[in-house]
Amino acid sequence: MIILGIDPGYAIVGYGVINYQNNRFEPLSYGAVTTPAGMEFSSRLQVIYRDVSELLQRFKPEALSIEKLYFNTNTTTAIDVAQARGVILLAAKQNGVPIFEYTPLQVKQAVTGYGRAEKRQMIEMTRVLLNLGKAPKPDDTADALAMAICHAHVSDSLLGKVRDIK
Amino acid sequence: MIILGIDPGYAIVGYGVINYQNNRFEPLSYGAVTTPAGMEFSSRLQVIYRDVSELLQRFKPEALSIEKLYFNTNTTTAIDVAQARGVILLAAKQNGVPIFEYTPLQVKQAVTGYGRAEKRQMIEMTRVLLNLGKAPKPDDTADALAMAICHAHVSDSLLGKVRDIK
Repeated sequence: MIILGIDPGYAIVGYGVINYQNNRFEPLSYGAVTTPAGMEFSSRLQVIYRDVSELLQRFKPEALSIEKLYFNTNTTTAIDVAQARGVILLAAKQNGVPIFEYTPLQVKQAVTGYGRAEKRQMIEMTRVLLNLGKAPKPDDTADALAMAICHAHVSDSLLGKVRDIK
Repeated sequence: MIILGIDPGYAIVGYGVINYQNNRFEPLSYGAVTTPAGMEFSSRLQVIYRDVSELLQRFKPEALSIEKLYFNTNTTTAIDVAQARGVILLAAKQNGVPIFEYTPLQVKQAVTGYGRAEKRQMIEMTRVLLNLGKAPKPDDTADALAMAICHAHVSDSLLGKVRDIK
């Protein structure tokens, strides 16, 4: 199954496309959509929508796995991340790709087996699971790949449950 | 000049299209895009994007006037409003319509001349300026019309300034 993981943002949108077959992960493409600080905000949204749509059309993933947003502070940044996340969800919906949301805790548990794992442990586990020579950069890309791995593990355990019931 | 005012939301998106000529307002269309509570969130975004795009294509406004978001509390609602606002900005950008943002204070001042006006005073002034028999419903629609009036007034005073300089 092909999964697109996304770490939402407006300056940097991390993405990672993986193929998950027989308990093995194959990274197909990963990187980040970046938009410059001086660009009009609606143009940044347009770039994000266009580039995420391109990824969806190119890889035709079975699922988009994206981080659930929680904000502790009332910042403009938080509002702008949410606005960017809106156009990412729209791109998935327009391309008929089902959306799955996970909390940071769920991602940590799925990738490292430990909900309180540190960021560098997460990145290292992601690197190892994907058999990459070095950690993907920027961190947003590693986070996006972790999102994709999380969805693979969760779908697997759900399938397991279905089998148990049968 | 034709202006589309928008009161952003995800359950109710108020809209108001006005034509502003020679200090007079003509309401062309107003109402609300509504999405049901039980609908998948990304489908709600899709409906909002589609319906706002239709308004932009039908009326070809010179400007989209939309409320600037500020959140005092960390709620899921706030995040979802911002996500919906993101797809509204995207629709404007995709249709080549310039976006103007105003704070609630600016809108109150522009419509009633008084930054601390109450909501019902705002609605009543909007009704009078647009020569409507009764106040538009829901309030989100009245708010959207007020956004459009605000942009008309601000553009006027900006034009005034340009004339003064000349």
